[in-house]
Amino acid sequence: MVASVAPDLTDPHYRAAIVDLLGAIGYGEISACERLTEDAGRAPSLADKLELLQLAQVQFAQVQPILDGLRQLDADPYEAMAPFRAPIDAFHAYTAPADWWESLVKAYVGDNLVRDFYREFAVHLDEHTRSIIASTLAEERSEFVVERVRAGIEADHLIAGRLALWGRRIMGEALTQTQHVAAERETLSEVLAGGVIDSLDLASIAEIFGRITRRHIERMGRLGLEH
Amino acid sequence: MVASVAPDLTDPHYRAAIVDLLGAIGYGEISACERLTEDAGRAPSLADKLELLQLAQVQFAQVQPILDGLRQLDADPYEAMAPFRAPIDAFHAYTAPADWWESLVKAYVGDNLVRDFYREFAVHLDEHTRSIIASTLAEERSEFVVERVRAGIEADHLIAGRLALWGRRIMGEALTQTQHVAAERETLSEVLAGGVIDSLDLASIAEIFGRITRRHIERMGRLGLEH
Repeated sequence: MVASVAPDLTDPHYRAAIVDLLGAIGYGEISACERLTEDAGRAPSLADKLELLQLAQVQFAQVQPILDGLRQLDADPYEAMAPFRAPIDAFHAYTAPADWWESLVKAYVGDNLVRDFYREFAVHLDEHTRSIIASTLAEERSEFVVERVRAGIEADHLIAGRLALWGRRIMGEALTQTQHVAAERETLSEVLAGGVIDSLDLASIAEIFGRITRRHIERMGRLGLEH
Repeated sequence: MVASVAPDLTDPHYRAAIVDLLGAIGYGEISACERLTEDAGRAPSLADKLELLQLAQVQFAQVQPILDGLRQLDADPYEAMAPFRAPIDAFHAYTAPADWWESLVKAYVGDNLVRDFYREFAVHLDEHTRSIIASTLAEERSEFVVERVRAGIEADHLIAGRLALWGRRIMGEALTQTQHVAAERETLSEVLAGGVIDSLDLASIAEIFGRITRRHIERMGRLGLEH
């Protein structure tokens, strides 16, 4: 049982957790921008390439508010991001797309998983942090992926089975790396998992992961993929 | 001797040349965005990585006005860009940076060469095209490179000789690929080289290249490199 922590930025314990959280979000966005641009190199057409570069650019545009938010907390943004390089790089290394279809599914499924995760926890945070995080969640541009993947499956039914497994792997790897982070960053996980508000007990956490999983399955369905 | 062509978009010959020019600029920017992001993967620190990603993002932001400009000319932007993929990809393949320093010098020298080139020719074009091109030239964000390279040379004088050669190679490869394009895209080169306005004769072209070369040498000097 961990102590309850009020979502108050003057509390050093809570503040340290928020610096961690923003650091993780910031490096996640930088990293997503780089990977999406790399994936754009596999696009079958210039139009597809531009769509993916557009997603990369949206990710990058979200970095600055996070850096600003960290500086407002008197934190060095680069120090705050540093602990999350290894787990986020590992996530990308273990989910390196083998082709264009895997790139597309990862862009859609991965980005939305991350957004769901932050959205769920942001409601329990202080208003200032919540508004910073909300600004990074504002734009959702990956719907073009749905069209492309559905058309791809229609043209070649065989890719559906492979991509369904791929979606599961992304989900699994995201959970694995989240657990690593939770184990290593005690302050962050205490605040997110236990202390932010009294009502956020283990049952609530299970509910949150249940909702995230359900939305993941819905998205896989929209892509025409079984989970 | 080629015929004089007035810079008038209702003239199909001139219009075809402008579609070519915008296609080349557009693909050049997409490609620069991809390469800069790739180069960001070699950055020694997160702060440096962000600087290079910022440059990549500036390049990408310039793509949309070019696509819009092409559509205004009833051209398919992807078809317009297609002929320039091979020479621009070749330029990047022959100037693939071997390390962070080469990435920095290429970002600075290459980007500014391209900008000089467009700036020189844009003055001879119709006002509409000129304003589209001007919008892609508006932002100059690569000055951070100057600081970094100068500091790098101060810390290790040996890199200066190598980077000076590297700058020459980028200039040489840019000229080589420009010549390929000029040879293959007759309408474009006729309009740019001969016909746009009567005064743009061979002597003027030589002057333009003289100015571009001088500015290149000045930039190399700012980096602390001999040409």
